[in-house]
Amino acid sequence: MERIPILKMGRVLLVTIQVDMHDRLAMTLQDDLTERIVQDRAHGVLIDISSLEIVDSFMGRMIANIAGMARVLDAETVVVGMRPAVAITLVELGMTLSGVKTALNMDTAMAMLMASFADKEHFNGGSQG
Amino acid sequence: MERIPILKMGRVLLVTIQVDMHDRLAMTLQDDLTERIVQDRAHGVLIDISSLEIVDSFMGRMIANIAGMARVLDAETVVVGMRPAVAITLVELGMTLSGVKTALNMDTAMAMLMASFADKEHFNGGSQG
Repeated sequence: MERIPILKMGRVLLVTIQVDMHDRLAMTLQDDLTERIVQDRAHGVLIDISSLEIVDSFMGRMIANIAGMARVLDAETVVVGMRPAVAITLVELGMTLSGVKTALNMDTAMAMLMASFADKEHFNGGSQG
Repeated sequence: MERIPILKMGRVLLVTIQVDMHDRLAMTLQDDLTERIVQDRAHGVLIDISSLEIVDSFMGRMIANIAGMARVLDAETVVVGMRPAVAITLVELGMTLSGVKTALNMDTAMAMLMASFADKEHFNGGSQG
């Protein structure tokens, strides 16, 4: 069965979207990803969309959904590599992806997640002290 | 045009192969990757094949080629997430991927590359001292 691979790097899960998403594939990805967030105790999800040249409302909604699901599982989502044309389309479609962080490249995205993990650790440490 | 995205993480380039490779796509990937190794001064290439359920001699040769090209550009290649069936097929096809390192998951692969970078740094440092 066709699946989008989920790569684990430390506490971060990486998903690279290269193919056109259809309903079934999107559902499988949501299932797999939420499963993996819990199983791997991930704190962050990176969604790379650098190979997407166009995006439709289905794809936009899927990204927003994944971010929402990750959030309630205590993981932060960063969308990486959005092309200018995709940004234009998303906003024109009325999808501002509120609550989803974006980064231009992987290094920035990883740095954002690491900073956010550090804050969390600090907060946890502070509440114990 | 269809392309396989190349993600940069520090000195490592990550390629996730999710789709069936045909000649044209493989050539584009080789061109893009060698270009990026030089441009980003990458020391390592990670090729994730965890979503490949089968592999043919074309794919096997492509992976070996990429590793060879990376090597002459002073970058090490690690193939990540090979499925048992793929390993069986590769060996049956007579492709042992000699000179290509493999790792079961990304964390191990990153650790392998980091260790190899550290050795290189150490060597460079030693030759200067």
